[in-house]
Amino acid sequence: MIQVAILGFGVVGGGVAKVLEENAALLRARFQTDVSLKYILDIRDFTGHAMAQRIVRDFSTIEKDPEISVVFEAMGGVHPALEYSLAAIRAHKSVITSNKELVAHHGQLLLREAATAGVRYLFEASVGGGIPIIRPLSDCLAANRVTSVTGIMNGTTNYILTQMEKNGASFSDALSDAQARGYAERDPSADIDGVDTCRKLCILADLAFGYQVDPARVLCEGIRRITEQDISDASDAGYRIKLLGHVRETASGIVPIVAPFFIKKTHILSGVSGVFNGIGVVGNMVGETMFFGHGAGSAPTASAMVGDLIEALERPSTPVGWSDTAPDHFVQDAKTLAFSRYARFVSPTKAQKEAILDAADAVLRDKDGTLSVILKPMDAQTCEVFLASIMPASPESVIRIFVPGEYVPEE
Amino acid sequence: MIQVAILGFGVVGGGVAKVLEENAALLRARFQTDVSLKYILDIRDFTGHAMAQRIVRDFSTIEKDPEISVVFEAMGGVHPALEYSLAAIRAHKSVITSNKELVAHHGQLLLREAATAGVRYLFEASVGGGIPIIRPLSDCLAANRVTSVTGIMNGTTNYILTQMEKNGASFSDALSDAQARGYAERDPSADIDGVDTCRKLCILADLAFGYQVDPARVLCEGIRRITEQDISDASDAGYRIKLLGHVRETASGIVPIVAPFFIKKTHILSGVSGVFNGIGVVGNMVGETMFFGHGAGSAPTASAMVGDLIEALERPSTPVGWSDTAPDHFVQDAKTLAFSRYARFVSPTKAQKEAILDAADAVLRDKDGTLSVILKPMDAQTCEVFLASIMPASPESVIRIFVPGEYVPEE
Repeated sequence: MIQVAILGFGVVGGGVAKVLEENAALLRARFQTDVSLKYILDIRDFTGHAMAQRIVRDFSTIEKDPEISVVFEAMGGVHPALEYSLAAIRAHKSVITSNKELVAHHGQLLLREAATAGVRYLFEASVGGGIPIIRPLSDCLAANRVTSVTGIMNGTTNYILTQMEKNGASFSDALSDAQARGYAERDPSADIDGVDTCRKLCILADLAFGYQVDPARVLCEGIRRITEQDISDASDAGYRIKLLGHVRETASGIVPIVAPFFIKKTHILSGVSGVFNGIGVVGNMVGETMFFGHGAGSAPTASAMVGDLIEALERPSTPVGWSDTAPDHFVQDAKTLAFSRYARFVSPTKAQKEAILDAADAVLRDKDGTLSVILKPMDAQTCEVFLASIMPASPESVIRIFVPGEYVPEE
Repeated sequence: MIQVAILGFGVVGGGVAKVLEENAALLRARFQTDVSLKYILDIRDFTGHAMAQRIVRDFSTIEKDPEISVVFEAMGGVHPALEYSLAAIRAHKSVITSNKELVAHHGQLLLREAATAGVRYLFEASVGGGIPIIRPLSDCLAANRVTSVTGIMNGTTNYILTQMEKNGASFSDALSDAQARGYAERDPSADIDGVDTCRKLCILADLAFGYQVDPARVLCEGIRRITEQDISDASDAGYRIKLLGHVRETASGIVPIVAPFFIKKTHILSGVSGVFNGIGVVGNMVGETMFFGHGAGSAPTASAMVGDLIEALERPSTPVGWSDTAPDHFVQDAKTLAFSRYARFVSPTKAQKEAILDAADAVLRDKDGTLSVILKPMDAQTCEVFLASIMPASPESVIRIFVPGEYVPEE
């Protein structure tokens, strides 16, 4: 019999308990033995709940029980999830988590401690919810040098942008709708300012490029300023607007960025709508790949965590992980990268208009006093200088254009 | 040092040699030792080739060399690939293949022999080329009861259908174009009649449902009869036409089918264009997932095979596989399944038209003597009887409508 514990009996922990119970026969067939949920750590009162007898309030009960071989950490946040995870690992229990904040900030430490203790620290559910992405990236695609990773990794913002496109809703109306449906929290800033996407991007960058990347060093812009007009100009020109986490290799390191981007409707990622997530990986041998599914939710997240149970039990040790904090110049500032940009100007003078058209590769709209263009590729500073030079016609909107790592032909 | 051999130095075998060479540093970092390509089995003359010294013509050289721990089978076809694979396995070498025909027909035997010998038989590259799908399905999603698998698994036919849609090309012109580009073979029947898709579908069904499914028992229709008019009616009604391999669970077994389907443009699989493949898996916990990438080609296929090398070396044994040939009633005839269908009639009489409209859920086109409708769901026999009843207005075209396992909302 395999005995496990869950830390935190909320949405995710409850999902793990549900998967272990509902798919018990399936897991028994796989392991040739039962998986028994012995403890659930939660400080709340579950009197009368079917699981009430398994609830414990003291983590040391779990830590000190030698029968527990695997701990599901479903608490969220850094403290005390970090301390509990370290203690469990040091007590030779594998730890499985969905906690992206913890992995993004302390993954290196936890992986090293797990290797030392001869157990696993696994986090498939920390990126893309139920979507298999961590294991495909670290194992199936490991024969590749990864050249870029690009993902729609936040269902809340993707739902909002999809609503704005499909129904012509404003950002604030779409946000209210997302809140009403429970897709967005009352304080939605971690989602809509890109913080959540940034953590997930860092985890993927850690795995793909081998160094712990500090989220604080990533250029991170959210979607608060996206307007109906942006969405409609994008659509008319054959694009959608998506909040992307993107990292690509350069000659001397990597450039990570989280920002809203124009992405061609013909690109597979632009078909990822609503609360779904999609994560693209480009490798030097495999070319473009993409992984799609539910990026959040109780059952999908638990599906990934119980999938990790199989990994923990069938492959108790592996060199997968990342070594050190990135060297100083490894993580480069995305401001140095040249991007084409969508820009929209209101009532430019004739001279300003001429300057804008000179700097543009394409005109998307030129009527009723509005001029929307695609600017030629520029780095952030060049773009700033250019825009300052044509003030006071400062643009209403500036949004980068995504350039895929591998071109997908429009046949 | 890890010593390996390749059987067959064609497109796939050459790709494996290339990945082992170009990404050698990356593999060395992973294994903490070198991977050395000791032999390549091929009967052709490679005098002067950089790899000439590794070429051997007698399989027993490889079979009898105890230093070889892994064999890449890149020969294709059933014989002698089956005999060589069995011999290698019995000599305690793991075998890695891209050979879908062999896996679809003899996977059960090869997996059983590998388990007995304590080695692995791995076939990630046999479905979806470079796309990670076998391992995600058998490991990452193993906490799920799989309810359906649906894939665009043949790049040749997908290229042809994409060309027909984008350029209004006829089937035969699009086929000629695919042949000119090397995407289709001179005898394209294995691709366009669905045989290749059927083998891949059977492998996925084996893994998802636990029994070896005989390709001969799968209802299999190709795309020869798809016309420009079908594509254009589909597009006007918000659909694309894709050749799908689809299998879903029923109360008492599974129903596999390979056929062209109407699929909503809003479904993620309909965005899989050109030579790309996409494979969707629906699980009872994870919901809908999809895996996208290059379904063929030298480097992508080799990427998957060298990915399997990691699996073979890091996890020398695992219960993954499928047990037995399916029991008699497990694989059900797709003819018993009710589908909505697109149907197009030319110049029906008034009475015939009334009968058609009575049986229709929607009218797509009704002008210039052409009537295109979506028929209400019917099983194959009911549909045949209905169509016979309104003869001689037999339809020009009848194409099934795909119903996703999980509804993706059009938000």
